[in-house]
Amino acid sequence: MAEEVINNNKQVILKDYVKGFPKESDMLVTTSTIKLKIPDDCHHAILVKNLYFSCDPYMRNQMNKVQGNDPYSLVPGSPIAGHGVARVIDSSHPDIKKGDLVWGFTRWEEYSLIRDPDTLFKIQDTDVPLSYYTGILGMPGMTAYAGFYEVCSPKKGETVYVSAASGAVGQLVGQFAKLMGCYVVGSAGSKDKVELLKNKFGFDDGFNYKEEQDLNAALKRYFPDGIDIYFENVGGKMLDAVLLNMKTHGRIAVCGMISQYNLEQPEGVHNLFTLVTKRIRMEGFTVLDYYHLYQKFVDMVLPLIKEGKINYVEDIAEGLESAPSALVGLFYGRNVGKQVVLVSRE
Amino acid sequence: MAEEVINNNKQVILKDYVKGFPKESDMLVTTSTIKLKIPDDCHHAILVKNLYFSCDPYMRNQMNKVQGNDPYSLVPGSPIAGHGVARVIDSSHPDIKKGDLVWGFTRWEEYSLIRDPDTLFKIQDTDVPLSYYTGILGMPGMTAYAGFYEVCSPKKGETVYVSAASGAVGQLVGQFAKLMGCYVVGSAGSKDKVELLKNKFGFDDGFNYKEEQDLNAALKRYFPDGIDIYFENVGGKMLDAVLLNMKTHGRIAVCGMISQYNLEQPEGVHNLFTLVTKRIRMEGFTVLDYYHLYQKFVDMVLPLIKEGKINYVEDIAEGLESAPSALVGLFYGRNVGKQVVLVSRE
Repeated sequence: MAEEVINNNKQVILKDYVKGFPKESDMLVTTSTIKLKIPDDCHHAILVKNLYFSCDPYMRNQMNKVQGNDPYSLVPGSPIAGHGVARVIDSSHPDIKKGDLVWGFTRWEEYSLIRDPDTLFKIQDTDVPLSYYTGILGMPGMTAYAGFYEVCSPKKGETVYVSAASGAVGQLVGQFAKLMGCYVVGSAGSKDKVELLKNKFGFDDGFNYKEEQDLNAALKRYFPDGIDIYFENVGGKMLDAVLLNMKTHGRIAVCGMISQYNLEQPEGVHNLFTLVTKRIRMEGFTVLDYYHLYQKFVDMVLPLIKEGKINYVEDIAEGLESAPSALVGLFYGRNVGKQVVLVSRE
Repeated sequence: MAEEVINNNKQVILKDYVKGFPKESDMLVTTSTIKLKIPDDCHHAILVKNLYFSCDPYMRNQMNKVQGNDPYSLVPGSPIAGHGVARVIDSSHPDIKKGDLVWGFTRWEEYSLIRDPDTLFKIQDTDVPLSYYTGILGMPGMTAYAGFYEVCSPKKGETVYVSAASGAVGQLVGQFAKLMGCYVVGSAGSKDKVELLKNKFGFDDGFNYKEEQDLNAALKRYFPDGIDIYFENVGGKMLDAVLLNMKTHGRIAVCGMISQYNLEQPEGVHNLFTLVTKRIRMEGFTVLDYYHLYQKFVDMVLPLIKEGKINYVEDIAEGLESAPSALVGLFYGRNVGKQVVLVSRE
């Protein structure tokens, strides 16, 4: 019998369910061990070395104690789960082989045994930074694509507002909207981020929502004739202000509501009657329903990246140990651009 | 020169903008005079004798003092405006002649000079009660039809929840949903109304929302597997509870939010994040966008009425003087079925 290779496996563990804003101390970096070989009884599985972790707002919701059975909820004592980029080091799956690069749902540890790799995507093109598969070429990119093209029903010349606009999804939505010939304004939480919107991503304009006493007045300034499309990433007071500024037959694609995730009770939204007076369609979506469009999306976006027609800004934290801080920072807006964690260069 | 016929014209006048719940004393029944002949310089106009007034929830919103220019807002000192059924007694319009019956937007007075009669519909079929053209064959009927068939995207076997279900619109939505083979539950504000839902309109079940301490628990009782379609007439706490009980890919057609119209500040709705987790489409609509379907609607509904396959319950107040009380009653749920005011039998 061959000698088994047992390796240390650093992990980021969820210590307990989270209430309020997540803290670094809600997570623990620890070291367990793992055999770097797929168990014999484990068919259609792969063993990966994680290269990049993606920090995404939805991960906060997995840290809640939920009633009933939620397949996405984390269990305290287990590693954080999220999207990432990884290299396959062993495989019992017929279509995936050792050496392949994949992106998709993994866990926050150096090595992961993935028992259902059919949800992963193989990385075909490595002419772009691998980390892009946590962002522009991964789940957030696909989210922006599906949300904008499939949910917003955009038309040339329409006015588009994007909140959390410098984030992983928002920066792409704005650029897609510009490619379509829309007028696009974004909001973000710092002067530097607003500069990015205008100078890097080509938004027509942008504002720092933290400097606005009256969001309704701010939106009226940028959209004197109203908003056709709102790409909703934040919820709460921002949504309430947007509802007052929508045009007739406007559309709101609800991608996320990051401002609400750390509240015990979500804020109340008061202006929903404008849905009737303005005949607004407000539609929630998740990227899970749109992955059948992934190849079409890549075929569109990859050339645009290579030709420099789409820009992407990442904020890369180095080392697995930095992952808790990077994730927590997301909810304070500390990241500038897509928050990634570099776990290993190889 | 022929002698001019000058007639008394009883009117219901809005005394001042309304705050909070409307009161009878917000309106004044008074008598002015009117020439029963269209002025010579008034082309394409008609003069009508009003036969029925329709009491509809949207009328409350016209009584608010609004900032800016709202074409639907009433001016204090003017008659209440709303839908009704009328007989033409003079016409300078090429397509409408004396004696015609019409329904549409009129004013709360015995006689009205209507300068833009192109918004009115001629009544073709008088085998049904004329008052039906304020309801099942008029604006509320068309609202139910458009909202259910065009906005809800219903499918056989789906679960449908209707609030304010015994009202002018709700009773029809429930019956349309049953015709399509859906499971339909409605809520209303009294035991008698709930009986109507079950025994007159064929809903599968119904409940009195005023008797429920916990609307979320009530909805779970009637929809253990969740709601595919919510036809929203009330807003506020009910909407919040419904959001917790929607199925994945559910649809909410927002027709009205009557529970909010008399509040200075609308209630906050807290559970909107379920739009994302359940991928819900929530869409406001107004009947104004769907009148091009009116003939199609009548062709479907009129035979169903005549064959007794659709029932309709009206609550008819007698006399123009009773109109203020009838309208106010709508916001306390005093009406059982569609609230109509009979102004004149001929």
